[in-house]
Amino acid sequence: MLGIEEIGTYLPVGRISNYDRKAQFGIDDFFIEEKIGVRRVSVKGPEEETSDLCIRAFEDLQRRTSVNKEEIEAVVVVTQNPDYNIPHTSAIVQGKLGLPAHCAAFDISLGCSGFVYALSIFQSFMADNGLTRGLLFTADPYSKIVDPEDKNTTLLFGDGAAVTLISSAPRLVAGRFTFGTVGNEHEKLICKDGTLFMNGRAVFNFAAKVIPDDLRRMAAKNGVNLEEIDRFLIHQGSKIIVDTIASKLGLPAEKVPYSTGDYGNTVSSTIPILLQDELGGTARTIAICGFGVGLSWASGLLRRV
Amino acid sequence: MLGIEEIGTYLPVGRISNYDRKAQFGIDDFFIEEKIGVRRVSVKGPEEETSDLCIRAFEDLQRRTSVNKEEIEAVVVVTQNPDYNIPHTSAIVQGKLGLPAHCAAFDISLGCSGFVYALSIFQSFMADNGLTRGLLFTADPYSKIVDPEDKNTTLLFGDGAAVTLISSAPRLVAGRFTFGTVGNEHEKLICKDGTLFMNGRAVFNFAAKVIPDDLRRMAAKNGVNLEEIDRFLIHQGSKIIVDTIASKLGLPAEKVPYSTGDYGNTVSSTIPILLQDELGGTARTIAICGFGVGLSWASGLLRRV
Repeated sequence: MLGIEEIGTYLPVGRISNYDRKAQFGIDDFFIEEKIGVRRVSVKGPEEETSDLCIRAFEDLQRRTSVNKEEIEAVVVVTQNPDYNIPHTSAIVQGKLGLPAHCAAFDISLGCSGFVYALSIFQSFMADNGLTRGLLFTADPYSKIVDPEDKNTTLLFGDGAAVTLISSAPRLVAGRFTFGTVGNEHEKLICKDGTLFMNGRAVFNFAAKVIPDDLRRMAAKNGVNLEEIDRFLIHQGSKIIVDTIASKLGLPAEKVPYSTGDYGNTVSSTIPILLQDELGGTARTIAICGFGVGLSWASGLLRRV
Repeated sequence: MLGIEEIGTYLPVGRISNYDRKAQFGIDDFFIEEKIGVRRVSVKGPEEETSDLCIRAFEDLQRRTSVNKEEIEAVVVVTQNPDYNIPHTSAIVQGKLGLPAHCAAFDISLGCSGFVYALSIFQSFMADNGLTRGLLFTADPYSKIVDPEDKNTTLLFGDGAAVTLISSAPRLVAGRFTFGTVGNEHEKLICKDGTLFMNGRAVFNFAAKVIPDDLRRMAAKNGVNLEEIDRFLIHQGSKIIVDTIASKLGLPAEKVPYSTGDYGNTVSSTIPILLQDELGGTARTIAICGFGVGLSWASGLLRRV
């Protein structure tokens, strides 16, 4: 059975402090610490491309476990900010890492629901094709498209990447997933002419309405009660949305980590970044849930092997 | 078992004739008819977006079979020319078609190898998640990025789209696939600053070298000899590349259709457009093979149910 063996992550060292922008945006410490929950956002270097963030995450993976590049049979990159629209960034990553020519490579275009979706998509693809070692990258540097004058986005989004090693020697395996889309709301979170636009209130209301029900549905589909789940790794859109979802479900705070205060919302990388810390932990069952661009969402349940 | 039940296609009515451009590019009838094999390229209307091409393909699907939108559980769009980079075009299509909210939707970023890849990816995803009716769209309008002064691209690429209904009542089912990537060659076919660049000779040499071997490998993986395969639907990159691959494998011309002379290379849609004609045909086994952007390739074998 395929599952998650190890995770590598990368957060660029560059930071912009939201405390330095209080006057510019008319915000206070309460807004920074309790509402958005982002003190600083991470920013990649001007020369760092999306594929470079992937390579850095892979270097972290190599520090954590032995990865024989010759054994990698598939690569996927989840991004909506690729190096180029053509070719797919996964091909560039395959070339930069020097992976074998028989390695399958494709990109998935999804935003904050991307990791959960891609975990299902990529594992299914690998299993069906008899592949046993693959790399699932998430890298979506929003600094490419965020307007630094736009309070709705510049205070929230940080650059980061993660790579999840999917293999036949997993530490966590996935159960059943749930997915959803409300495409007629897609203009609430959109990139037009190279600039990101987000109706923060609309996206918040969407997630606050849809996600609690979806997590209940996902738990039922996996034959567990919400109370039996040890950890909930909810997309770190902002502190207030994570708190709101936890509160609506009556979940104790210690089960629902929020830890992106020092780097911000890294889009599809928020969940694997949190999950890296859980790999060596004690939680037996871990819910994962992403939501955002589309608007779309996906939830799943991981169990420790 | 999931497989291909029906296919809808769309070719815009707009055409640019290559005969009208003989003086401009210093080409003759032999070049048009025998080398590239493209007499006219199809061009979408200026207001038609990628998602609109998908909707038109869906309308053709509806004319061919009864599709209850309420039963569609998943949508994928294969494109590298989306409506926007954010959100994914599949979400826009889901919204425009009014598909259910529990419908999974994601985009795959791949070029000319995209249909074969996506068939494997999407079927595996659907099967693993217990889904029985999904729509696989291919729509990659290169008119958005082709420089009309660039002989290497403007004479070749045409706009088009296809939608493949994947269901549990298939007429064709897929066997084993093969995939490959040579990412360090990615600059041979790339879109920089909104303009497509192609080193036609390099892409031709790549395909002429890699694809015959890959088709042999794919046949072996499916336990058949090449001679036993009734039809080879090879990505319609140009007439000369299809002829060259057929010749290298010693395939009779009637097994290897080339039929894009009136609309051009529609990228990931070339194979489903050919396949639509085969659905009601007599071929029992059909090889499909895509190659290009990445550089990458994918091959598979379809069997009639």
